[in-house]
Amino acid sequence: MRILVTGANGFLGRGLADVVCKRFGTAERIVLTDLTSPMIGVGPVEMIPGDLGDPVFLHELAEPGFDIVFHLASLPGSLAEREQALGHRVNLLGPLMLAEKLAARRSDTRLVFASSIAVYGDLGQKTVTPDTPCHPQLTYGAHKLMTEIMLADMARRNVLSTISLRFPGIVARPLADNGHGSAFMSQLLHKIRTNEPFECPVPADSVCWWMSRSAAVENLIHAATLPSSGATVQPPVLHATIAEVAEAAMRVTGNRPAIHYGDDGRLRRIFGSMPPLDANLAISMGFRADADLETLVHATFSGD
Amino acid sequence: MRILVTGANGFLGRGLADVVCKRFGTAERIVLTDLTSPMIGVGPVEMIPGDLGDPVFLHELAEPGFDIVFHLASLPGSLAEREQALGHRVNLLGPLMLAEKLAARRSDTRLVFASSIAVYGDLGQKTVTPDTPCHPQLTYGAHKLMTEIMLADMARRNVLSTISLRFPGIVARPLADNGHGSAFMSQLLHKIRTNEPFECPVPADSVCWWMSRSAAVENLIHAATLPSSGATVQPPVLHATIAEVAEAAMRVTGNRPAIHYGDDGRLRRIFGSMPPLDANLAISMGFRADADLETLVHATFSGD
Repeated sequence: MRILVTGANGFLGRGLADVVCKRFGTAERIVLTDLTSPMIGVGPVEMIPGDLGDPVFLHELAEPGFDIVFHLASLPGSLAEREQALGHRVNLLGPLMLAEKLAARRSDTRLVFASSIAVYGDLGQKTVTPDTPCHPQLTYGAHKLMTEIMLADMARRNVLSTISLRFPGIVARPLADNGHGSAFMSQLLHKIRTNEPFECPVPADSVCWWMSRSAAVENLIHAATLPSSGATVQPPVLHATIAEVAEAAMRVTGNRPAIHYGDDGRLRRIFGSMPPLDANLAISMGFRADADLETLVHATFSGD
Repeated sequence: MRILVTGANGFLGRGLADVVCKRFGTAERIVLTDLTSPMIGVGPVEMIPGDLGDPVFLHELAEPGFDIVFHLASLPGSLAEREQALGHRVNLLGPLMLAEKLAARRSDTRLVFASSIAVYGDLGQKTVTPDTPCHPQLTYGAHKLMTEIMLADMARRNVLSTISLRFPGIVARPLADNGHGSAFMSQLLHKIRTNEPFECPVPADSVCWWMSRSAAVENLIHAATLPSSGATVQPPVLHATIAEVAEAAMRVTGNRPAIHYGDDGRLRRIFGSMPPLDANLAISMGFRADADLETLVHATFSGD
């Protein structure tokens, strides 16, 4: 078994790499890659830093092929919106070139792609289903959607075994990790944990989709072993207001820092007006949300 | 006024170039491009042959910017399915690079993109609306869909004024133009015109979406002048069986050649099982289908 994790130095990547190393300890080869050398790694782990936008690096990295590839590397949404050329390179050309290099070696490689709910754009309040149309309102979401389409087509042609998972903002990212527009969701949890006041940019009744890093990691690993290829999956999430999550975090910690709620209309529109989700199809495929808000908070606070 | 037509040597491109030259005769500059030198051109027309997959050629072509660009150049669907690397270059990287070069010069350039109903994939029998989900079943359709998404995003960012039109198989392509899976729709009309027997690969009751080249050209020109930017439009079409179109062509010509209907399940599934279309939105924007089947046949037979 040979496994590759890209973006292994990112928030989700570190969590995934950790679990992959523990759970696939007998793998012949586990390769972690990121722009800079990944920090963790036990067992048969190789850390190969490099730029996935560089065809020469990609070519060498893909040699001699993998059984499972988790492609997490990406430029976060807000940053990609400001840095269009870099976003184009990292979020569009990167996955397209990686998929092509992998397919040139082995058509049975399972490529698990970390997509994003940014593919949807303005959702309105109708329940989201697999047929919900996508009209991305960030270039990040446009690139993720384009990659999903390309990967589904490669699966259709049987040149690569692909699956895309649409992740919401995963909590709780480190405070320094603020290139994501959804960073406030993580900041809220960190500030309650350290009992510090927090200026939340969106109103208390803003509704977000929530997933802990450990739930995201389990969904990625589940996707790696699913028999069906070519799917684009919206994993189940917790659907809760900012205030409900703050309350759960306060119950878990016993802290009650002051939280001041703002009214950033743009952030609320993109991340804080999420409709209900019908994830029955994904659930029937074995994907899972955090069990409840307290489980989410616990996962977040226990080294998640 | 400066106008560029790519794919100007193709079936649709020749028809468009002809009308553009006549209708925009006072334009400062009309540039026609294709891999080989375009054959037509009157007035202030420049013919600049070259490869849109070549960044250097693209860079020079885009200089010093255009008011209107019609991007028609593409590798047909069946051919692109066999020649994946070429399709990737022509049908995906080509439009992405062209759009980028144009945007680098002028953000108010109107780019009219000839997309395709191949974006939909298997449609079932539910009426097609602007919310119909897209699951392309040909790489050609995947590339067209990816391009639509990128162009809508560029319009959202106000870096280019874009509009995409989803065309059905346009009739009647020349008999030699057989890289399209929908070529049988055109062949049927040619054979009736010349009163020759025809082996139609799909059953008589196969339902297709029909549009003549002159209707397609009028829709392209209409798209060039619409104020709104960023739209992806499904223009109205005629919804009719192969047998109904054959009957109309026989009425118009007085010919009654023998037509033998086959049962190619794959062709029928992709091109001959089209559901009804609700094109009210496009009609309200001013897009038009051929008035009726006889109008379609007449357009086809009068040098269309």
